[in-house]
Amino acid sequence: MPKTMRAIAKLKPQEGVNLIEWKVPKIRPKEVLVKVKCASICGTDLHIYHWDHWSSSRIKLPQIIGHEFSGYVIEVGKDVEDVKEGDYVSAESHETCGFCYGCRIGMRVYCKNYKILGVDRSGCFADYVVIRADTVWKNDKSIPPEVASVQEPLGNAMYVVSDSNVTTKSVLITGCGPFGLFATAIAKRCGATLVVAVEPNPYRRKLAKKVGADFILNPMKDDVESTVQKLTDGEGVQVVLEMSGQPQAIKQGLKLLRHGGRLTLFGLPSDEVPIDIAEGVIFKGAHLVGISGRKIFETWYQVSELLKRKLIPVENIITHKFPLEDFQKGFDLMKKGECGKVVLEVS
Amino acid sequence: MPKTMRAIAKLKPQEGVNLIEWKVPKIRPKEVLVKVKCASICGTDLHIYHWDHWSSSRIKLPQIIGHEFSGYVIEVGKDVEDVKEGDYVSAESHETCGFCYGCRIGMRVYCKNYKILGVDRSGCFADYVVIRADTVWKNDKSIPPEVASVQEPLGNAMYVVSDSNVTTKSVLITGCGPFGLFATAIAKRCGATLVVAVEPNPYRRKLAKKVGADFILNPMKDDVESTVQKLTDGEGVQVVLEMSGQPQAIKQGLKLLRHGGRLTLFGLPSDEVPIDIAEGVIFKGAHLVGISGRKIFETWYQVSELLKRKLIPVENIITHKFPLEDFQKGFDLMKKGECGKVVLEVS
Amino acid sequence: MPKTMRAIAKLKPQEGVNLIEWKVPKIRPKEVLVKVKCASICGTDLHIYHWDHWSSSRIKLPQIIGHEFSGYVIEVGKDVEDVKEGDYVSAESHETCGFCYGCRIGMRVYCKNYKILGVDRSGCFADYVVIRADTVWKNDKSIPPEVASVQEPLGNAMYVVSDSNVTTKSVLITGCGPFGLFATAIAKRCGATLVVAVEPNPYRRKLAKKVGADFILNPMKDDVESTVQKLTDGEGVQVVLEMSGQPQAIKQGLKLLRHGGRLTLFGLPSDEVPIDIAEGVIFKGAHLVGISGRKIFETWYQVSELLKRKLIPVENIITHKFPLEDFQKGFDLMKKGECGKVVLEVS
Amino acid sequence: MPKTMRAIAKLKPQEGVNLIEWKVPKIRPKEVLVKVKCASICGTDLHIYHWDHWSSSRIKLPQIIGHEFSGYVIEVGKDVEDVKEGDYVSAESHETCGFCYGCRIGMRVYCKNYKILGVDRSGCFADYVVIRADTVWKNDKSIPPEVASVQEPLGNAMYVVSDSNVTTKSVLITGCGPFGLFATAIAKRCGATLVVAVEPNPYRRKLAKKVGADFILNPMKDDVESTVQKLTDGEGVQVVLEMSGQPQAIKQGLKLLRHGGRLTLFGLPSDEVPIDIAEGVIFKGAHLVGISGRKIFETWYQVSELLKRKLIPVENIITHKFPLEDFQKGFDLMKKGECGKVVLEVS
Repeated sequence: MPKTMRAIAKLKPQEGVNLIEWKVPKIRPKEVLVKVKCASICGTDLHIYHWDHWSSSRIKLPQIIGHEFSGYVIEVGKDVEDVKEGDYVSAESHETCGFCYGCRIGMRVYCKNYKILGVDRSGCFADYVVIRADTVWKNDKSIPPEVASVQEPLGNAMYVVSDSNVTTKSVLITGCGPFGLFATAIAKRCGATLVVAVEPNPYRRKLAKKVGADFILNPMKDDVESTVQKLTDGEGVQVVLEMSGQPQAIKQGLKLLRHGGRLTLFGLPSDEVPIDIAEGVIFKGAHLVGISGRKIFETWYQVSELLKRKLIPVENIITHKFPLEDFQKGFDLMKKGECGKVVLEVS
Repeated sequence: MPKTMRAIAKLKPQEGVNLIEWKVPKIRPKEVLVKVKCASICGTDLHIYHWDHWSSSRIKLPQIIGHEFSGYVIEVGKDVEDVKEGDYVSAESHETCGFCYGCRIGMRVYCKNYKILGVDRSGCFADYVVIRADTVWKNDKSIPPEVASVQEPLGNAMYVVSDSNVTTKSVLITGCGPFGLFATAIAKRCGATLVVAVEPNPYRRKLAKKVGADFILNPMKDDVESTVQKLTDGEGVQVVLEMSGQPQAIKQGLKLLRHGGRLTLFGLPSDEVPIDIAEGVIFKGAHLVGISGRKIFETWYQVSELLKRKLIPVENIITHKFPLEDFQKGFDLMKKGECGKVVLEVS
Repeated sequence: MPKTMRAIAKLKPQEGVNLIEWKVPKIRPKEVLVKVKCASICGTDLHIYHWDHWSSSRIKLPQIIGHEFSGYVIEVGKDVEDVKEGDYVSAESHETCGFCYGCRIGMRVYCKNYKILGVDRSGCFADYVVIRADTVWKNDKSIPPEVASVQEPLGNAMYVVSDSNVTTKSVLITGCGPFGLFATAIAKRCGATLVVAVEPNPYRRKLAKKVGADFILNPMKDDVESTVQKLTDGEGVQVVLEMSGQPQAIKQGLKLLRHGGRLTLFGLPSDEVPIDIAEGVIFKGAHLVGISGRKIFETWYQVSELLKRKLIPVENIITHKFPLEDFQKGFDLMKKGECGKVVLEVS
Repeated sequence: MPKTMRAIAKLKPQEGVNLIEWKVPKIRPKEVLVKVKCASICGTDLHIYHWDHWSSSRIKLPQIIGHEFSGYVIEVGKDVEDVKEGDYVSAESHETCGFCYGCRIGMRVYCKNYKILGVDRSGCFADYVVIRADTVWKNDKSIPPEVASVQEPLGNAMYVVSDSNVTTKSVLITGCGPFGLFATAIAKRCGATLVVAVEPNPYRRKLAKKVGADFILNPMKDDVESTVQKLTDGEGVQVVLEMSGQPQAIKQGLKLLRHGGRLTLFGLPSDEVPIDIAEGVIFKGAHLVGISGRKIFETWYQVSELLKRKLIPVENIITHKFPLEDFQKGFDLMKKGECGKVVLEVS
């Protein structure tokens, strides 16, 4: 075992991240050490890169970043019972407390005290990462490392789709970044009868087509409203998955929602959004539900089954792979939106 | 059978309604004629009285108003199968179309073409009223006429409460007009463990106490936020029933909602309301659901059972009874908010 | 319009049905007359053919049979509002009463007084059939007549699958007659990650393969139990769809069900079945739900969308088409189980 | 701290239990030591007392029994974070594994590897008991020790009732042992409009009356079927809670269930029960659900709120209190069924 390792870290309170040499971390009794194989870049990493309001108020410097990965366990703490050296794993990046109301009722997604890998403790954009044993997810051997590394964001999309109950329904998906693309692929796989995707970026519109959207609209050019009404015989869609955080998309989604329909809010608006509660929500009997994170570990089981059985075209969404050293290329693509999911091949 | 009858009608496009003499209406093959016993005044009637934007754009004059009542069937159309002369009845005021998507999937509450008694056809503030046979609800004989006449608004509150699944939960009810009072009584009866009611009007705060609220707060004076946090060990409430339509109440409700909690929107805001989607909805995993109308006839069955078994103190909410001629007294009280439910005793 | 027509009828209380000449039926004010294009044979028709206990105690002779069809409306009763001459239609075979508890709460599938086409009134194995206007379902023009005629049994399977919530779940389907085959195709389409079908008949096992089952087992030869345990890492399946009515299949299904799993009972056993309530249901937290009929008309909307978007391989399940006169060939195939769905081409 | 303590233990493979002197147990890093205040006798303890098939095949002798209790924490393991000396506590008796599918999806009630206090490790019928810190439930100070000790069985009843969604529904409860009595009180509190209890034992029929059943029937004498049909206008009940394990009660429950109704199975039959699947389950659209254990810790929160707010008459169900030494009196009463819940006052 080497003493030091490569890592991507935030060092200073300014734009950008750096490749550094750092000591290989030590495990505690309930933790395991993982040799990272692949890691993927999340929108959260980009927020940290930009050092926005959220990241600058939460993160203590220096901080090794990254929380989506796959790799092999190479050391196991003395109190760990269910993980072994050699296990091929990924991990839930949210360490939940176990004591709060959410944790105790079995809804760890509502934990009030969670800590995030690569945000509150050293992350996985590195040769080695230490994680708490109870966050480990054992991967099926048939799933390639780059695919295994994107299970966590795939899990967010899975939670969005399965909680929205899209089967045999018409679905509008606003925003086709990586989460929106995952949601599109999963919704189609889960029996949505009509999937209309809305996305301004032409690169991502092409991806939406590839992963199964029935119709793809450009909100800058197409008449989204009349198209959706026509496709649904004037009834509107039964489900809207809002993945963009754009106020206009939220309002349009509500407008296009059928009576008794469901609007899932996942994209984060930066400000308050004025909502027409009377017409848009009450007279319509609309259901608006906010989703963040994943159902731990229900979502992981669901995602794992989809991948194991090769039921979604996830390879079409992983558009770029770079060696760890070329992380800057990945961040640059993310900034432009000229990518689906970007994977760093660490070892 | 007399040729003419008394009725309360909107005659001119201006404030107020009048007592008039009018011909007794005729039934068609699928309709029945009811001799009205009691009728109750709804907020909708007050809107018509004030001739606000909604009523002036929907109603054709002259129009006999009123849609909540109880009475006896005295004539039955030739194609009516299930209603008989002498039946003691009330009625669902929404005539649904039977053809639209909502009707066909069994959710008549989502009908797109419904017509309302006392709005789109002659109402029940009159000695006689004609209704479509399939809107008839047969009352249990043990329920007094004034109580039977408020089953419809009670049904709205029932829908609000039962759809919000309050059993063993902490509940915040914002707004204690008649709907809020009904909701308070029902929530407590349905096993809410904590009911906190918020209402500025002192008359209605007293009523809220009488019908079972555990704590009643004045939003003009009390620190609602810290009180609710204290009562819920800092977790917030599991359910908010928003009955006021006040933007401030909606925002406060979202803020006081527990992770994974449910906010039911029933009160109609007159404008758009700015909502903190990121913090208030997404990170909280909040469920916001709009409710209007009643589940036809599921809600009627529920309300009827509660009344038959005398399980809610509805008599405390019916604060005033007047003969039909004194309708003006009722409208005056409604305007001031110095009442619960006002019943007109027609015969 | 001719005076008489061809029809398949049960004439005497014994095995078999006959082709007869019969007068074209007349419509009443709320009914429509349909010229039948295609009709399909259901298991119920076979029960009537055999004149079993159920049919002999319910049906009055003579009786024109058949209840699954597609065709064109050629005459419309005077009180019919929403159906027009020329409409391309099928129909829900259950005429519900509108008065009972089930009907009034919007769950017509629970109607206590329903009448069935081809059982309680003249059926559709004929050139013309009269149906109540509110049972009409308007078909999308893109759906071929033979496919449109099987929408009703497809609807039963749709109800079974959607009520069982199979998305991302492992599913065991016991029995691959037409209903089981439809359920297999729909479950796979609706995101079941693993579908294991069990069926003794080799002809139907081949069909199960064709419509998407991942594994097909022969209960007479294969070790169903160990295979399912292996495929599910020893956890058992999350959902069992029991389509055979075989006591052994029900017991095996319960045994192979995961903790908290769902077993849907659709196949009708002829006798009581001994159930291990303690181990099989209580300690397992199992959910057993009986399904019959369809959600009127929610299921029709769902089926229609699947067909319109060509999302299920229904053409693989319609294995035979015969002219009306060759009805006997169809019944013979059904008796042997050497078919999927058999369609009669009437005109 | 003394070296030894009193305890009730099973010593030999035969009927009966004994009061013994035993060494005070030691805690491990994640455990706590509790001085027991009150403990209550469960049906499971009676099974062990009788040394029936289940207990004799599971339990290793000698074994200190008992799993329902309240007390004070007097020592805390070094790795315990959330429990402190002096805490007034009870505990979930099921220690779940944390690794299996059920545990990982947040449904610890489905854990496959749980261990039970007083069955698989030393129990609480003793002056001191050691429990795992994550099973601790902190009691509200307002709840008396004898009431706090029955929270666990109350939790089973709570799970039965809340999972059955009884609000505004008619409910039949078969069997009024302690679980049935708790279920009766909770169902009434949670808004069941009609509760009919069925119980042969006159002592327990009286208790059922006291805790809120609207009608109490003796299955040996009363015509349960016609009475229930009459009380429900011939529709049958919407919910059956089967708490007796009697085959006749299960069959009768199914028969009296309304279309679309719910039958919850909690009482454990000793053998297979023949079920009329076709008429009783399928044509009825019945939902049969098995319940055992509690939702950890959701049920505890629910029970705790009901007790804290004094919303159920639990004091009427705790019929007897004895000092620890008089345990035999308690077991004798349990054998005869001449009791509700029996509490042992330990210190």
